[in-house]
Amino acid sequence: MSASTKPTKDRIVETTERLFRRQGFNGTGLKQIVAEANAPFGSLYHFFPGGKEQLGTEVIHSSGLMYQRLVEGIFDAAGDVLAGIRDCFDGAAEVLRATDYEDACPIETVALEVASTNETLRVACAEIFESWIASASTRLQSAGVEKARSRELAIFLISALEGAFVLARGMRDARPVEIAGEHVAHVVAEALRAAKRRRATTRPRGRR
Amino acid sequence: MSASTKPTKDRIVETTERLFRRQGFNGTGLKQIVAEANAPFGSLYHFFPGGKEQLGTEVIHSSGLMYQRLVEGIFDAAGDVLAGIRDCFDGAAEVLRATDYEDACPIETVALEVASTNETLRVACAEIFESWIASASTRLQSAGVEKARSRELAIFLISALEGAFVLARGMRDARPVEIAGEHVAHVVAEALRAAKRRRATTRPRGRR
Repeated sequence: MSASTKPTKDRIVETTERLFRRQGFNGTGLKQIVAEANAPFGSLYHFFPGGKEQLGTEVIHSSGLMYQRLVEGIFDAAGDVLAGIRDCFDGAAEVLRATDYEDACPIETVALEVASTNETLRVACAEIFESWIASASTRLQSAGVEKARSRELAIFLISALEGAFVLARGMRDARPVEIAGEHVAHVVAEALRAAKRRRATTRPRGRR
Repeated sequence: MSASTKPTKDRIVETTERLFRRQGFNGTGLKQIVAEANAPFGSLYHFFPGGKEQLGTEVIHSSGLMYQRLVEGIFDAAGDVLAGIRDCFDGAAEVLRATDYEDACPIETVALEVASTNETLRVACAEIFESWIASASTRLQSAGVEKARSRELAIFLISALEGAFVLARGMRDARPVEIAGEHVAHVVAEALRAAKRRRATTRPRGRR
């Protein structure tokens, strides 16, 4: 389905996602959204009676979950956890270069803009971050990382990616993202070795 | 000197710094700046004939360099590089908790907002990031990290802090910042050990 034949609501949501990525929440006006979505202005309040805040909440959720599925797809397609991490970070670096450093995390700019100014939108961002942490944590556990360690490692992985995006977009240089990927993969490899050692030493004698 | 007795230009710059941290560039209007700085509206264009962009450029530079001096002070006061890293990250986590998750990096929100929309302000942010990278890189080298490795490690350190701020502010939880500090210190400790090993094996025979 081409963009123009999509239902009006979908066009509004997708246009807003794109504009939030590029210019954030406060930099995106409703007039620009309806103009670029080729939608009548009234349709915005028809689909989102709560206005920009309701639209923003929906866009944070939809783009955040879409990004999660995208990253999970790349990660799960790789043979193992370390290759998965490197593929995700290297893929993100490639996308940055290909999109003139516009296309990074869909909710990062908005998350910082609203953190201290709009509690509804902040909570929406926090829910997405929790969803990403849970997803990464599950995958780290499946790979052998201890449960107690997996959440912290997942937080570190996502932090490292988000922070690398800040430097990469600001400096127009995708290397920070690749550098982050190399270091995160290294830290995860170490956590896997530590878990393996611990399993080996705590295994009951009779089963050795 | 209390805030109100400071020269008008200083009050405008300091108020803008505070508002940029909390609500970003696009969320901060000139009317709010002059109102909270207790300055006549005309004084803003008197001191900054280029308007918001000129004020923004000056604030990115001044707050970015102020933050650099602050972090350098904490870092240099610690006995060694690893304690310095932990003190900086733990201190940042403490400040977040004490300021209701408002006070993190002074230029981060702005950097993301302007990355694809205002080249003058993007360049100002890039200059600050370069200044931070140079500062961290110098300190890592002084501690024994090899020169070729020090820039990548400095980029990773700053990325990790910036990304942890995104999660911490969004989730109202400073743990991501402490977690980042622990992992960065660990990675730097390893780089120091690797550099030491390399120095030991490449030292000329006669001097062993």
